[in-house]
Amino acid sequence: MNALQRMLATHPQPAADNDRLSEAAHHIAACSQVCTSCADACLAEPMVADLRRCIRLNLDCADVCAATSHVLVRQTQTDASLVQALLNACITACRLCAEECSRHAAMHEHCRICADHCRRCVELCEGVLEGWPSA
Amino acid sequence: MNALQRMLATHPQPAADNDRLSEAAHHIAACSQVCTSCADACLAEPMVADLRRCIRLNLDCADVCAATSHVLVRQTQTDASLVQALLNACITACRLCAEECSRHAAMHEHCRICADHCRRCVELCEGVLEGWPSA
Amino acid sequence: MNALQRMLATHPQPAADNDRLSEAAHHIAACSQVCTSCADACLAEPMVADLRRCIRLNLDCADVCAATSHVLVRQTQTDASLVQALLNACITACRLCAEECSRHAAMHEHCRICADHCRRCVELCEGVLEGWPSA
Amino acid sequence: MNALQRMLATHPQPAADNDRLSEAAHHIAACSQVCTSCADACLAEPMVADLRRCIRLNLDCADVCAATSHVLVRQTQTDASLVQALLNACITACRLCAEECSRHAAMHEHCRICADHCRRCVELCEGVLEGWPSA
Repeated sequence: MNALQRMLATHPQPAADNDRLSEAAHHIAACSQVCTSCADACLAEPMVADLRRCIRLNLDCADVCAATSHVLVRQTQTDASLVQALLNACITACRLCAEECSRHAAMHEHCRICADHCRRCVELCEGVLEGWPSA
Repeated sequence: MNALQRMLATHPQPAADNDRLSEAAHHIAACSQVCTSCADACLAEPMVADLRRCIRLNLDCADVCAATSHVLVRQTQTDASLVQALLNACITACRLCAEECSRHAAMHEHCRICADHCRRCVELCEGVLEGWPSA
Repeated sequence: MNALQRMLATHPQPAADNDRLSEAAHHIAACSQVCTSCADACLAEPMVADLRRCIRLNLDCADVCAATSHVLVRQTQTDASLVQALLNACITACRLCAEECSRHAAMHEHCRICADHCRRCVELCEGVLEGWPSA
Repeated sequence: MNALQRMLATHPQPAADNDRLSEAAHHIAACSQVCTSCADACLAEPMVADLRRCIRLNLDCADVCAATSHVLVRQTQTDASLVQALLNACITACRLCAEECSRHAAMHEHCRICADHCRRCVELCEGVLEGWPSA
């Protein structure tokens, strides 16, 4: 168990679906870092002019993941409609970023790693969304 | 014109709908500050235990508005599907926050101001969403 | 008075130096938006490869200003040492960004606006730091 | 190696001190999540009125760690003075948060975990600061 999983387990009113939530929140927070790093690595590439869309989507995805990871760790009187709308935005951001990074994955290893990480985020967000009604 | 409006007007590829976008982005960024301030003021109230849901929604709304305002000011190769999903999340966050703050508006002036600000955010986000196809 | 100034004035334990704090917090939050916009405009410039350092410093400044503006609006049991350390980081970020943007101000109007905004931020942060002991 | 470590290793101009930087950035990003979670758990406690300072410092620490972790992963034309000023602010935020959470650690397990995590952050930030001249 990482620190975040242990934190969520000690909440006065723990969610039913804590393990799934904490895994997703942990991965989405890391995705904000990975996308920030990919934007920065793209910026340093000689072919930066060809990576504009990639940098743009990296930065957007970093912002959306940061917000989503924060909302997801909160468990005090959670409103399902907000979490669902935000997870949908996060899925869109991660999917777009994964698609764009995939186009540069053969040439830039940072884009390959970022695409993989974003795709895993999409799966975890979808898992949380599916588990929500029973949570 | 405020600084943000002048910034967006000088972008190498300015959006068609710059004035609407910059007004919304400016107001949403301010909303992140207003909600952060309302959460903090609620925390200092003697009746803090009755304001838990208000604080929770304030904090969520601050996070979502911060991400939305950043994505909205970017104009380089914008992807409409992400902006729309994020605006929907922002509308949900602001509406929930406005509704909860309204319940405490008669007793707490900070909640009244915050509710007004969030409601104006909802209108501006809806305006951007409506204007998008023609933008 | 803007919304943030009215918010801070209604806090249950308002700070002595509210007007100065709210003006600084408002301007620093706007600076996060202006720097995000300048990074994005630089990214769209044909000469993006010459603007790498500018984009890097814009992004750093946007992050630091976002954190500083949030900490600054909170008034519940404020710890002076944290505010001071963060204002120092914010002054450094804004000064570096202003210096770099100034180098491109003649060619890019967005850099000129951003440099001006960052310089005003430095002044306001310094004003808050100076006023702190008597606050 | 986690995703962030692999990302930093693939940057076109990798820093000399990549392992130390990526470990610190990873831990600081997680700290932003842990502090967000601790603020939320404190908010749900029956004795929330006694945890006001803890919540305030948790929220500040979450904001400062978010900014610091983003700045730390960037390696394109890094300016040492900004990183150092921001690490100092991060050390202050984590130390204050650790001290306050420690006071509630016997009663609230989430405060104990958060205090531990913040203390480890302080050590890692100090390690990066010390390693900087040779980096």
